[in-house]
Amino acid sequence: MSAGKHLAKGSPRPALPDDGVPRLYSMRFCPYAQRAHLTLNAKKVPHHIIYINLTEKPEWLVDYSPLLKVPALHLVGERNQPALIESLIIVEYLDEKYPENPLLPKDPLQRAQDKILVERFGAVTSNFMKIIVHNAEPDELWTAFDIFEEELGKRGSAYFSGSKPGFVDYMIWPWFERLPVIKFVLEDRYNFDVKRFAKLNAWIELMLKDEWVKSFYVTPEQHVEFWRTRKAGNANYDMLA
Amino acid sequence: MSAGKHLAKGSPRPALPDDGVPRLYSMRFCPYAQRAHLTLNAKKVPHHIIYINLTEKPEWLVDYSPLLKVPALHLVGERNQPALIESLIIVEYLDEKYPENPLLPKDPLQRAQDKILVERFGAVTSNFMKIIVHNAEPDELWTAFDIFEEELGKRGSAYFSGSKPGFVDYMIWPWFERLPVIKFVLEDRYNFDVKRFAKLNAWIELMLKDEWVKSFYVTPEQHVEFWRTRKAGNANYDMLA
Repeated sequence: MSAGKHLAKGSPRPALPDDGVPRLYSMRFCPYAQRAHLTLNAKKVPHHIIYINLTEKPEWLVDYSPLLKVPALHLVGERNQPALIESLIIVEYLDEKYPENPLLPKDPLQRAQDKILVERFGAVTSNFMKIIVHNAEPDELWTAFDIFEEELGKRGSAYFSGSKPGFVDYMIWPWFERLPVIKFVLEDRYNFDVKRFAKLNAWIELMLKDEWVKSFYVTPEQHVEFWRTRKAGNANYDMLA
Repeated sequence: MSAGKHLAKGSPRPALPDDGVPRLYSMRFCPYAQRAHLTLNAKKVPHHIIYINLTEKPEWLVDYSPLLKVPALHLVGERNQPALIESLIIVEYLDEKYPENPLLPKDPLQRAQDKILVERFGAVTSNFMKIIVHNAEPDELWTAFDIFEEELGKRGSAYFSGSKPGFVDYMIWPWFERLPVIKFVLEDRYNFDVKRFAKLNAWIELMLKDEWVKSFYVTPEQHVEFWRTRKAGNANYDMLA
């Protein structure tokens, strides 16, 4: 595993050992990239990390990510060295390829239900953006949270995946880690209701203690600080480098 | 298998035999629902079809499709009778559950590459809407087609899935079946280039002869007529019923 500063326009391609180990193109504060990091770490898949400055992207990024997005996973050990994109596709690939610590259930119906739940999390991510970018009211965000509060009740387990975190838990976690940014933006309007979201709140506390969440964790203060610099037009990508 | 007219607001729930057979909530002209039909037919999965009037939706649709979209697959033979949504999740579920005629490759990398290709087809579907709804120029649609023309070349096979149609072929087909609507809307501006898209054009001709494509086919004239009635605000859902 490696890391370093975020590479920008004009940066040469990083020199990495010719070891056949997958290379993850990422950005330290990107919630979608975080899904890939959590999966790689939870499944103990050796990998290299190449951080990308998303404001001024390096010219060679297009070779690994045609839409210039992160995460992208460059499989240098495979024939023709293909690169994968789309966080959920990358995560499913890793889960199918590496048997250690399976994240998705094996049963087709349960797999489908977990994928639908993550798909419905789109209501959370879109309302996150509405609040952060357009200073919207949080009501619709809480309505989206209701789905997940209710689901934890239906499943009757501490985690969405049962007695330990799995696919749903890790795929939705990055946005819960960033709730402090919502709180910062909304100020007095932040009214997360611990009674309404009792199960989700307990789940957040448990997730904060998870080994793999901790392996790629950013503190509330750091998330807020990154958001502030990004909003001001000078995103401080290397704040933690 | 059954079918019938599209059920609207006020319609009672359809009376279906208590046979444990999955029920597909669909709309005859919906390209996303068509993905589920093609998969059910190609894999010979017995099922009932319940067509939904998407302009005036029946009150009970929410019980099977929380976002009121089609397709939804109601698994009445499973415990708690869950319903699945999202066309690609439904198709993957069917492919994992029913071994006959596998559509996705078994190899994790090939699976991921097929899923990425279908994800990138979003550039086609969004440009379709821009032309149909906003009367946009077709240039970006053809640029999106380039990806698929190039991919057929790279794969070196008649179909995206090899010597017979598979996941990618059936997932993208519904929009190619609707190209005549684009032609109708664009009139003189329609400039599909048979040389530029030689491989795609040959693939279209092959797909038109496929047993399962034919099992749920709508003619160019019918697609155009449905689009005309829909655009005029009185979508003729039951045109083929």
